[in-house]
Amino acid sequence: MKFEVVRSGLETRARLGRLSLAHGVVKTPVFMPVGTQATVKTMTPAELDESGTEMIVCNTYHLYLRPGHRRIQALGGLGKFMNWSRPILTDSGGFQVYSLAALSRVTDEAAEFQSHIDGSRHLFTPELVVEIQEALGSDIAMCLDECPPYPVSRQKAEEALCRTKLWAGRCQKAQKQDTNLFAIVQGGTYPELRRRSATELVELDFPGYALGGLCLGEPSGLTYELVDSVTDVLPSDRPRYLMGAGYPEDIIEAVKRGVDMFDCVLPTRNGRTGTAFTSKGRLIIRNARYSDDKRPLDEACDCYTCRNFSRAYLRHLFIAGEALGPRLLTFHNIWFFQSLMKQIRAAIDKGKFESWSRLFLDRYQSGKAG
Amino acid sequence: MKFEVVRSGLETRARLGRLSLAHGVVKTPVFMPVGTQATVKTMTPAELDESGTEMIVCNTYHLYLRPGHRRIQALGGLGKFMNWSRPILTDSGGFQVYSLAALSRVTDEAAEFQSHIDGSRHLFTPELVVEIQEALGSDIAMCLDECPPYPVSRQKAEEALCRTKLWAGRCQKAQKQDTNLFAIVQGGTYPELRRRSATELVELDFPGYALGGLCLGEPSGLTYELVDSVTDVLPSDRPRYLMGAGYPEDIIEAVKRGVDMFDCVLPTRNGRTGTAFTSKGRLIIRNARYSDDKRPLDEACDCYTCRNFSRAYLRHLFIAGEALGPRLLTFHNIWFFQSLMKQIRAAIDKGKFESWSRLFLDRYQSGKAG
Repeated sequence: MKFEVVRSGLETRARLGRLSLAHGVVKTPVFMPVGTQATVKTMTPAELDESGTEMIVCNTYHLYLRPGHRRIQALGGLGKFMNWSRPILTDSGGFQVYSLAALSRVTDEAAEFQSHIDGSRHLFTPELVVEIQEALGSDIAMCLDECPPYPVSRQKAEEALCRTKLWAGRCQKAQKQDTNLFAIVQGGTYPELRRRSATELVELDFPGYALGGLCLGEPSGLTYELVDSVTDVLPSDRPRYLMGAGYPEDIIEAVKRGVDMFDCVLPTRNGRTGTAFTSKGRLIIRNARYSDDKRPLDEACDCYTCRNFSRAYLRHLFIAGEALGPRLLTFHNIWFFQSLMKQIRAAIDKGKFESWSRLFLDRYQSGKAG
Repeated sequence: MKFEVVRSGLETRARLGRLSLAHGVVKTPVFMPVGTQATVKTMTPAELDESGTEMIVCNTYHLYLRPGHRRIQALGGLGKFMNWSRPILTDSGGFQVYSLAALSRVTDEAAEFQSHIDGSRHLFTPELVVEIQEALGSDIAMCLDECPPYPVSRQKAEEALCRTKLWAGRCQKAQKQDTNLFAIVQGGTYPELRRRSATELVELDFPGYALGGLCLGEPSGLTYELVDSVTDVLPSDRPRYLMGAGYPEDIIEAVKRGVDMFDCVLPTRNGRTGTAFTSKGRLIIRNARYSDDKRPLDEACDCYTCRNFSRAYLRHLFIAGEALGPRLLTFHNIWFFQSLMKQIRAAIDKGKFESWSRLFLDRYQSGKAG
């Protein structure tokens, strides 16, 4: 892996980068759609390509349980399995173990949990999680972390960051391949804990650092403050990844603070449930006001959905329960996020990020989507 | 509308034709995928084009109830609404009124029914059904028919064919545009009633004729016999349409007997539920034997699905409940049916339909799909 900062911000800490990985080069700031179970829901790899997607996130917990990492390895690795030829980052599964599985017990040794699929019992050690991700053939693997929910007490947050650091060291030692392993900064909503976590992980020297346990429902202002509290502790020559962000405004604020990588289920999940992101804000397609609306979702968009279908038709698909509806909105939303990232990169390149972001947000927050 | 028989069978009654309609030329024998609610389930119009689909079938009953034919008309007609630029045939809704809606009462005057969506009461007269299809802008509209289920007594079958003929006459008189209105031959499983129905409808002089009330579960041999009983009564210069067929073997047998047009939910419905049609027969993708199978669904197929995904991956998508699975199998199945029709047309053109069909069916019925 090679990470080059092509241009650093003048007005802000925003930066333009190039992340070179085994399966290709990724321009940063990058938005990675989420393909939890080896598929970005409803989309083909060809459509992800078309949307400008350069990298996706898959999930260790899910793929370990089903269809199994050894099976995927025998089928040629995750990229070949799902026919995605560009880079893949795999999340460690720490978050899913805590949020999705029935959790039995966490000790410094391991996290024991029950599968959300069949209730079977499993043990995730830092070593196993590295082994799984190496079997999958991830371009970037994540350390196993302890990810407490929001809100969390200072004491619990401190325990989680200690364990996360301990596990990060064990993950590092468990590597058998030249895997790009990123560490995850924890520390709850406590800026000094976040700084301490970042400082300790930097001492271990990872090729990249993620901010975990954020975007879990805390106020945006607090998220930005916590991002601020660590980005200058993290080395400027390593990529920074804000896990689970987010809304366009969150991405913009985090880029401003020096974050390079993002992933979020928003474009896919909201697409499936009928919310479209547009240059003028969000639009709920089931709303009766769109019944006879001949306009595309976003008149400023030139994705396949907007070039070919009216709001009236898209609303009909959702009301009639037709699978094409979620598909067309998902595609539009991913296109919207990738178009946002292109605009962000262009603005940084021109040294105009601050003014561009004001214009974008004025329009996006105008409430005139419909 | 113009229908030309380009080549008539030498060995069989199979024939090659060209059907010229307002929205384009359709090569016959043609297979029309079903887009009941103004969408061929999970597919984009671009994918239908790519599969070789030249014409689709939509449904009057469904579109009248939701989103409403007047709304579709105001949005520019059905083709524009769903962004399908090629021809559309609309089924009259007679079948759905009998099979799907809670039916209150049928008289010679009209069919009164309750919506399967909200229980609201509606009345379909032959005149209204023509009016709806004219509002939708169908390239081919169907007369309202009475479609009894299988099995049906001779008396009921006779009543249904009398009413169907009465309604066909009223539909003809109700036309306000130059719509291509096809009549529907009924008569249950009674060859002499079928011949009578066909003879009476031919006297009324329609541009095309359909065989209704078949492919409803009766033995295939009986279907073929009933098709045989009418195809020579129907004028050879008009297209013949076997509604609801069917399996590849049924299409081949009907083509042999002089049928030109087919529609069926099989490729889409089976695709959604995990059954793929292949050159060696059907394949149930959820089967555990495919867990580690690197091969495509059909090694003889070059559709997007077969060029890019293994059975192991497709199985994973179905087992994990991922929407991409139904999408990829539906695409493959429609491609398979269109490829079948291309082979049929090429074989008729070469005067080799009989020998081609033996080869195709030997392979297709070999039971070696998996």
